[in-house]
Amino acid sequence: MHDLLAPPVGAADPWTDLLAARTRLGRSDAIRDILAAAGATGVLSLAGGIPAPDSFPTDRLRTALDEVMTRQPVRALQYAPTEGIEEMRASLAALATATGAPAGVERVLVTSGSQQGLDLTAQALLDPGDLVALDDPSYLGAVQVFRRVGARLLAVPGDADGMRTDILEQRLAQGARCKLVYVVPHFHNPTGAVLSAERREHLGRLADRYGFLIVEDDPYADLAFDGARLPATDVYTDRTVRLMSLSKSLCPGLRVAGLVAPEGLLPDLAGMKQASDLQTNSLGQLVLAELLRDPQFLPDHVSRLQALYRGKAEHLVRLLREQLPWLDFDEPRGGLFLWCALTDPAVSADLLYPGALAEGVAFVPGTPFCIDQDGSSLMRISYAALDPAQQQQAVERLARAFTIQRQKAGKP
Amino acid sequence: MHDLLAPPVGAADPWTDLLAARTRLGRSDAIRDILAAAGATGVLSLAGGIPAPDSFPTDRLRTALDEVMTRQPVRALQYAPTEGIEEMRASLAALATATGAPAGVERVLVTSGSQQGLDLTAQALLDPGDLVALDDPSYLGAVQVFRRVGARLLAVPGDADGMRTDILEQRLAQGARCKLVYVVPHFHNPTGAVLSAERREHLGRLADRYGFLIVEDDPYADLAFDGARLPATDVYTDRTVRLMSLSKSLCPGLRVAGLVAPEGLLPDLAGMKQASDLQTNSLGQLVLAELLRDPQFLPDHVSRLQALYRGKAEHLVRLLREQLPWLDFDEPRGGLFLWCALTDPAVSADLLYPGALAEGVAFVPGTPFCIDQDGSSLMRISYAALDPAQQQQAVERLARAFTIQRQKAGKP
Repeated sequence: MHDLLAPPVGAADPWTDLLAARTRLGRSDAIRDILAAAGATGVLSLAGGIPAPDSFPTDRLRTALDEVMTRQPVRALQYAPTEGIEEMRASLAALATATGAPAGVERVLVTSGSQQGLDLTAQALLDPGDLVALDDPSYLGAVQVFRRVGARLLAVPGDADGMRTDILEQRLAQGARCKLVYVVPHFHNPTGAVLSAERREHLGRLADRYGFLIVEDDPYADLAFDGARLPATDVYTDRTVRLMSLSKSLCPGLRVAGLVAPEGLLPDLAGMKQASDLQTNSLGQLVLAELLRDPQFLPDHVSRLQALYRGKAEHLVRLLREQLPWLDFDEPRGGLFLWCALTDPAVSADLLYPGALAEGVAFVPGTPFCIDQDGSSLMRISYAALDPAQQQQAVERLARAFTIQRQKAGKP
Repeated sequence: MHDLLAPPVGAADPWTDLLAARTRLGRSDAIRDILAAAGATGVLSLAGGIPAPDSFPTDRLRTALDEVMTRQPVRALQYAPTEGIEEMRASLAALATATGAPAGVERVLVTSGSQQGLDLTAQALLDPGDLVALDDPSYLGAVQVFRRVGARLLAVPGDADGMRTDILEQRLAQGARCKLVYVVPHFHNPTGAVLSAERREHLGRLADRYGFLIVEDDPYADLAFDGARLPATDVYTDRTVRLMSLSKSLCPGLRVAGLVAPEGLLPDLAGMKQASDLQTNSLGQLVLAELLRDPQFLPDHVSRLQALYRGKAEHLVRLLREQLPWLDFDEPRGGLFLWCALTDPAVSADLLYPGALAEGVAFVPGTPFCIDQDGSSLMRISYAALDPAQQQQAVERLARAFTIQRQKAGKP
């Protein structure tokens, strides 16, 4: 554990890198250049969506690795079934059942991260031109997946209670034929909103009435500062695919996640996975299954995480309230992010970004997350990566960058 | 290493499972059922494409795991760049350079198995209706990928020297506009053929003249019984994507492989990978990079593998020559497979298959591998999984099944 204090500065962050991908989406090279700069030495990053390095259960994972490599090395190194190793599927089924509707193992597909679960679901279900409803703003990795399969996007506004399902219903009643609705129900990326219990139920009713599939991507649910959690939408409808990430609750580097799908869908999703990568790595599956065999491990670990991130969030919020009064945001209740609005019309987030970088601090401007909404005064700030002293320094730099931008705009 | 002697009977085999995938390809449920039966207890499988469990460098991998989890646990558990961890990219670049044209790290993308490399390449390059040339018969996983993106297939016949590039040239000269040519140049799956040096050079010239991309999928190259290896096609043309698998040379369970692409293609492929699964698992990358840091490790290990598989192949070939005179095949020179023709017109491979299963032995009938060719008298047999005593028993069972089929066909 001796490198836990390695600075998060410049740490790889594929979530933010999405901005920079030169795929068929045609993201601009300008953004790619800006983000490359965010990884430069000396830049304090409030941009990343990566978990805190001191959040990983390193010792327990090491013990589990030893156990697996002692007891069943050949299974860890050999091919495994495309659907996943039985123990890992069972662990995921148990986690799903504990947080939503009962899920049998036969409805679980192990995936290489929940990003793959989303990609497989989109590829299995969507044809070019199909309509997908999602929050505006939304997670970039989802937008990228839906655009790649040629889907049209129906951007649904939200508030602190998540997606405005009443607006979604209006659009459906007006004839919008959605095939899929994508939600991040706890501590949404980037807004931090939690989809309320009423809206979950409403969404479930709409799924049954209009025949769409809900894709519920819930990586931040364990990071509730008060430990509370709302049930998954599959308690209200059978038309839900749950993406089960462990990246924020345990660690992202093993790339072991899963999905729980309606029973009839699993063979198609497994067939897609087979063509995509045959299977998820065997070693990671056995190690996580070994770790989750102890039913008390995850609840205990998650309690520690909640305290860790609550402390980081409270510290950063205090600094921002004190030093950046021009930044407006709701108090976070969990997850990793603050979604902030710049209240000074003289300074846009898109202009502040390069200025902030020049001062040695990075955040993510709001525009790339936004679909129909204007994101130019919005920005996403993460409290996950930096320690208190680094947070203090980052906020000072951000304040300096803001002042400089205001002066450039001819304001006193 | 104490479970190395676990019987390979019923071992998971996603390669063969491809036959059974109920994807948009619409594979028949009949085949799915037959293959499920092949995994049943008591069935000796000559069907699998999986490496021998005693081929894995378990002790060395364990040492490398310890080293990584001691020295850099956070890197092993944290997100990593989509393109791959630098050390692993460098290892793959060195392996590519040693076996083909010089490859810089910037042209390497780490992938979750080489199946993913193939999938990403197909998705980045092919639009529905595009033409892909490949061997007939071909690896099922490749056919599945190409069909999924809506490509049309141009099946090119082969012989013991691999793809008949003269026939490919005729088709190109007649106006076939191939966008991609897929080859498995060493010990082809299923035929075992090695693409000759002349044909590699010819293929390179054709790629330059007709502007297609060669996708060179070479997982069996290290398994040459005489240790010889022909250079990759990228020594003849810049228009090659090399898929670099380590599944047969080290082990498949970590799902760490790579590809080497022409420089301009890498950003597109990385963008595709980002949407597909963000990154390949960090732990596996660091562990393999640690293992490959010793430049003598892989050559020494591969020498042992060559002796191991040569011994298995020679034993099975002797048994087959003695007891199954109705089976015709070329002496294998490496890889994992025998591609066999049934010389008795009274018995087809498709009919022999269920009969063999009933006797407790499995192989893969030729039909699913074949595109235009008639595969009904062909079958693929692997010598990799079974030990000598099991091979003996499997061949006896196969002989019995054959006799029964002949009798059913009314022959003495």
